[in-house]
Order: sequence, then structure tokens, then C-alpha cells
Amino acid sequence: MFVATQPYKGTRDFYPEEMSVRRQIFAKFQEVARQFAFQEYDGPLLEPLDLYAAKSGEELVNQQLYSFEDRGGRKVAIRPEMTPTLARMVAAKVGELSFPLRWFSIPNLYRYERPQKGRLREHWQFNVDILGGETRLADIEILSFIAELFEQFKCKDKVKIRLNHRAWVNFYLTEVLGLTPEKAQRFSKILDAKEKMSAEDFEKALLELELNPEGRKLFDEYLSLTLQEMFKKYPESPISELVQILERLEDKNLFEYDPVIMRGLDYYTGIVFEGFDRSLSNRRALFGGGRYDNLIGLFGKTQVSGIGFGLGDVVLMDFLAENALLPTAKASCDFYVTLSDEKFFGEAQRICKILRSQSFSVSMSLKVSAFKAQLKSADRSGARFAILFGEEEWKEKKIILRDLKTSSQKLLTTEEIQKISFEEK
Amino acid sequence: MFVATQPYKGTRDFYPEEMSVRRQIFAKFQEVARQFAFQEYDGPLLEPLDLYAAKSGEELVNQQLYSFEDRGGRKVAIRPEMTPTLARMVAAKVGELSFPLRWFSIPNLYRYERPQKGRLREHWQFNVDILGGETRLADIEILSFIAELFEQFKCKDKVKIRLNHRAWVNFYLTEVLGLTPEKAQRFSKILDAKEKMSAEDFEKALLELELNPEGRKLFDEYLSLTLQEMFKKYPESPISELVQILERLEDKNLFEYDPVIMRGLDYYTGIVFEGFDRSLSNRRALFGGGRYDNLIGLFGKTQVSGIGFGLGDVVLMDFLAENALLPTAKASCDFYVTLSDEKFFGEAQRICKILRSQSFSVSMSLKVSAFKAQLKSADRSGARFAILFGEEEWKEKKIILRDLKTSSQKLLTTEEIQKISFEEK
Repeated sequence: MFVATQPYKGTRDFYPEEMSVRRQIFAKFQEVARQFAFQEYDGPLLEPLDLYAAKSGEELVNQQLYSFEDRGGRKVAIRPEMTPTLARMVAAKVGELSFPLRWFSIPNLYRYERPQKGRLREHWQFNVDILGGETRLADIEILSFIAELFEQFKCKDKVKIRLNHRAWVNFYLTEVLGLTPEKAQRFSKILDAKEKMSAEDFEKALLELELNPEGRKLFDEYLSLTLQEMFKKYPESPISELVQILERLEDKNLFEYDPVIMRGLDYYTGIVFEGFDRSLSNRRALFGGGRYDNLIGLFGKTQVSGIGFGLGDVVLMDFLAENALLPTAKASCDFYVTLSDEKFFGEAQRICKILRSQSFSVSMSLKVSAFKAQLKSADRSGARFAILFGEEEWKEKKIILRDLKTSSQKLLTTEEIQKISFEEK
Repeated sequence: MFVATQPYKGTRDFYPEEMSVRRQIFAKFQEVARQFAFQEYDGPLLEPLDLYAAKSGEELVNQQLYSFEDRGGRKVAIRPEMTPTLARMVAAKVGELSFPLRWFSIPNLYRYERPQKGRLREHWQFNVDILGGETRLADIEILSFIAELFEQFKCKDKVKIRLNHRAWVNFYLTEVLGLTPEKAQRFSKILDAKEKMSAEDFEKALLELELNPEGRKLFDEYLSLTLQEMFKKYPESPISELVQILERLEDKNLFEYDPVIMRGLDYYTGIVFEGFDRSLSNRRALFGGGRYDNLIGLFGKTQVSGIGFGLGDVVLMDFLAENALLPTAKASCDFYVTLSDEKFFGEAQRICKILRSQSFSVSMSLKVSAFKAQLKSADRSGARFAILFGEEEWKEKKIILRDLKTSSQKLLTTEEIQKISFEEK
């Protein structure tokens, strides 16, 4: 019985070409994070199950979490999202850390889902958070960061960020519509799912609220009035915060108020947002985030408010590919040193060492073969230059430097190898 | 009930300082790999359980593996080592890949173990492999790579690499001592454990071999003769390969033949090796590896021989720390832009943007406070420079650039900000 070569369902193998693309995308994450002075952190892939039971939302814990008992009877989970780990880490050192924190991470996350386009069972997610600081300023900084990130991916014009505010939703459902907190909570889940429901199903769900005609009119207004119209009607409500944030953002037309944006996770308390591809062919959110006020309190520590977002590599790569913006895999190396006779082995090693010490990327042939066969494998190696030498060159202590793009060659002494510069490449 | 802030037993939280150290170490892995033209790959953290059942060795599968059934009844494991994933990936595309492959990866691995110094339940492991190519040349290239890696960590002189050869062990146990293959296999495990056993226990284990006096003498020779003495006695045996490899290696005194080096994993077939700290206070292996001839065959594909090693971050960091060679965490940013009045917010944002577009790392105050308080938070921020402006500067469209090391200041116009160069830093 042979073992199967497929990876586990919903996971990916990254061969060097795919890995090169992933590395370039992560390097961009890291570069923009560096420009905004975010510092990288990481936590363990396995976390105590308790960490998610409290605040991550039922769907995630009951249906999507990879959880099991370890050999010592501890209940553990493979992290499905990073925010609980972040909250735990911050809570553990809340007295020592100097706030506001600007932190980011690129964790590998797992969820048990039916694999489909844009959604697998694992992905890498760029997580960026600010903890502490003034709410509005931190909200603006995070949203400006996202704008810059997509600017540097050269596709800011192809993205739309839809925003809402949890306190505003709550205000509207309880204060304006007069729902009980429980009903409001249940209904916010329905609003969250509205775009995936049929009009009939949504109407049916609305009936359960038992709104009178006036309430029904107010509900329709919730869905149809613009941000400014709402602000005029309820200037003292939490919507004022959303207005102030949007006023201060530079890229006005990147952002848009949307009353059905809710985010599935239970821990959000302030602004919430999701980023979408402007092209209608792709309706899945590219990223999402929001403000959470009560996460650190879960651990019995001083409250610290935070805001952050997560951007997954699967959706991002699909999006970049559709827009022909995916980085191309990088060529394999600078030099390929051939080996036409075993007696040249020591010399080939020496040449490799000289070139590597100049920080070149150098591959060495691991198969002795005739000069012509070596030339062929050099051509196939993907290297920029080949270094060849046979009996003849050997006698004169010289090597052939061959440009594999142009097939032009020149003879160099071994001393000249030590002076090969990037210009000569 | 509050949730605990501790990470899961045997795992680590990487706060920004620790993460900075980890990043620098990984960057060195990647840099040396690049110089040797190794290409990075990665595979999924979860693998089908079958992948380990075949060849990873009983101890690992029965006692150390994190395995469970997913919600769909599939048996999965969290990868405890990378080689089976590598073999699976290579087997899946064996017809398309162009050999020899020079591949590396830095996966996160999990084993259920009793946490102790140098060994946790998770670590990151630098895995470097060559698949295909001529056995001896690839073996030498991998060992030369390791030498260069420790050279670049500035501690080559503190490491000793002990080598053995599985085929040689096998030859000695079956051909010289005349053990049956089953007895030889069982006994190789005992040799592997010799250094952890008491002399009495080892003697007891020896008795089970039922060696006659001549056999016993030959066995003692196995442990005591040098490589050259052995080669003289058995010149046609697989030990000749070990001799040829050691002859060709540049750093002769980095390497040493050791007849009890065996490696726990069942899949090794050729040379095997482990790296040790020369200081006697640390007896745990720093890294280990070897040649495996039959891994790809497990998948029913063309055989490809490979050689590789794994170096874990936990042991490496301990080792570097003991030798005062651990990289120091990097400072947080170049500039800290202060905010002494909310009305300056737009201007502060603009200044950040200008500096960030010059690729500087720029933090912005997320709290409005008086000029003096801003100066304080700038000092605490860890930035190299602060940018400050109050009412007075604002009127003149100027900002104060303050060197936070020397406390010297100068006034700049907003235009001059656009021309701040690294020299002016």
C-alpha cells in the first residue's frame, strides 16, 4: 500500500515557485508594517480551547474549530484566528507593555470548512492591531494603513472598504427600534447574513421582530439612509464617531458607510469594516476588522481597547491574480558551477566559496559529466551565469564565465573571480 | 471565570523583542540558503496520519505525535518533522521537477514531549535537503553548507559534527558480527541510546546478542577503532564512502567519525550525523540529519535519494545565548511624530506620509497631549528622532526635528522634511 501524495484536504503545498510568490507578498506586508512602525509578534499554533469558547462566536467554536484533547487530557485548539492570542499575550504583560502597541503578525490559521474558491482550511493571515491610544486616532491610523497597503500592492483603486459601527447598530436596534438587548443581538446576526439570504428569508426574519408600521418604516430607513442623513437625525448617537473618522480619512472614495456590515465575531464593539473587490465578480470580503473594547478584560486584567484587521493570503492572492498583479517567482541563482571531472571537485568547491563569500547565490553541479553535458545542465539550471572548465582551461588556471542569457563567454583567471562585481553580471 | 494568560504547555509567545531575534536568525538561515542556491518550500501543518505511520519510527508515532480525527472522520497529524512532507511533495511532482533539488524550509513542528531545557512541544526547524545528484557530492555539499552556516553565526569553532553511516553499521552488525537483520535492527536502536544508558544497562543489552568471545572482541573494536583503522580492515565496506566524504571536506576538524551516531528515524540509509556543542555542559544534539534512499518510493514513485538536516530554533537560540551570540532586538522606528493639539492631526498625518514614502519607519502619537507630555512619550517611544510642533512652530509652518539620542534639535520647514536623508539621521 502506497501513501498518497495529496496534501490534507483544503491545505496547500508551496513548491519553490509558489513559495517565492508568498515570500514576496509577506515581504510587502512586513515592509508596510515597518513604515508604520508596527512590530511583529507571534504566538503558538495550539491554544487552550477556553480561549475561543468565550468570545469567538458559536459558529466558529462549534463547527469550524480544530480542537482535540492532548495526550495529557488538556483541551486544545489549532488557532482559527489571531485576535484571542493577541489579547492573551497583551493581558499577560499588560503592566509591562508601553501603550499604545502597534503590533502585527502573519500567522497560519486553520478552520474546518468546505474548501471553495477563496476559502481553504488553512490560510496565512496578515493581522495588524493597535491597542491603547485614542479610539478615533487609532481607528484612522489602521484605516490609513490599509489604504497604504493596497496602494503598495498597486490596487487601491480596485478596493472598497465598507464600514459600520457596532455601538451604532446597537443604538439603532435598541433605542430607535426598541428591541430588547437579546432580540437586538439575534437580529444583528441576521443583518450580518443579509447579503447571503434571499429577500423572502430576510422578510421572514424581520417578521419575528414584530415591528409596528412605524418601526418597520424606521427599519427601512436604517437600510436606506446615508451616513449624513443618519447623522442629521441622530447627531448624539455613536454614528457621530463614524462621521468623524470618515471626515479625517484621506482617501475618501475608498471608504463607504454600509449598515449591514457587522462582522461575525462577538468581540467587536466599535467600528467594524470589510474590504471588497470593486469588481462585482468577486463578492467575498478581502479582509475585515474592527474595534474590540473588552477582550483584555476576559483575562481579569485592566481593560485595553484595540482595533485591528486580518487579511488572508488565499483571498489576496486570488484578487491579485485576477488583476494580473501577482508577483512573479524569482529566478533561482546567480552562478552555476559545473563539474566535468571529479578531479576538479576541490577547485569547483573553492570557486563556489569565493563567489558565495561575495554574497552571490551559487549552485554547484552535483553530477560529474562531460563538458557538453555540463553546458546543458547549466542552461537548464535557471542560473544567470555558468562557470565552466575542462582540461584545457584547467592547465591555464582559467575558467569560462558564460552568460546564459546571451551565450557570450569570456575567460577569467581564478584571481579575477574574486573581483567579479555585480556590474560585471 | 477568567481565561488564563499562559500559553499552552511547552509552547512560546513571541513578543516583539523575541520575534525580532527570531526574525534575525531566520534571515540568516535564508541568507546562507540563498548563497547556496537553495529554494524555499513549505507544506501544510496538518498532514494525513498515514504519512508518519510508515517510516518515522515508533516512538514518534505512538508517543509524540499530535494526531486526531477531523470533523469528517479523517485521521490527521500536526507535523512533527518536515522530511515526510518533503518526500510527499517531491513524489507528487517527481516527473516535473528538475533534479537535483536544493530545497529548504523553516516549518513550525509539534511533538508531545515533557518540556525541558532545549526541548519544547513546538519549535521552528531549519530543514535543508538535496534530492538527486551524486551521493557523495551531495553529502559534501550539505556538510559544507552546515559549516558555512555556523561560520556565519560566528561559532563554527564551538561545534563538532559526529558522523556515521547506516550501511556501514548494518554491514558491521550483519556481516562482521553475524547478527540476523532483525537483531541488527534492534541493536542499532540500543547503540543509538548508548549515551543515555548506564554502563550496566548497556552490558545487559549486549548479552542479548549472545556474542562469542571473538564476536565480543569485534564488537569492542566497533566502538574503539578509528575511521582509518576501520577502513584499513574493511576497505571494500560502506565505510569507504565515509572516508571519501571526510577527505573532501574543507573543515577537517569540524567533523569526526562516531560509531554510535545512529539517528532515531527509520528512514536513514547512508551517512547520518549530529552536531554538538563542544562545551561539555550541553550534551544535547544541536542538529542532525542523514541520507534517505527510500522515502520517495513509499508513494509508489521513482526512487530519488536525498540527504538533509534539521536545526531547531530552541536549541540553536540556547546555544547562541550561552555563547553571547544571540542577535539583539532591533530598535522600534526612525521617527515619532507627536500631536500636541487635535487641529494638527491632518498635518501630522501628512508628515508621516511624507516620511513613510521615503521608506522611513514612522510612528505617530495616538494621543493628543500638551507639548511637554508629547516630548516625554517621544523619549519613551524608542524612536531615533521625534518630530514636534506646537502653536508657535505651526504659525511659521515649521517643525522641530529632535535627535532623541543627543537631545539636539533643529527647525525644519515642511518642505525640508521631504528631503530628510539617511545622512541627516
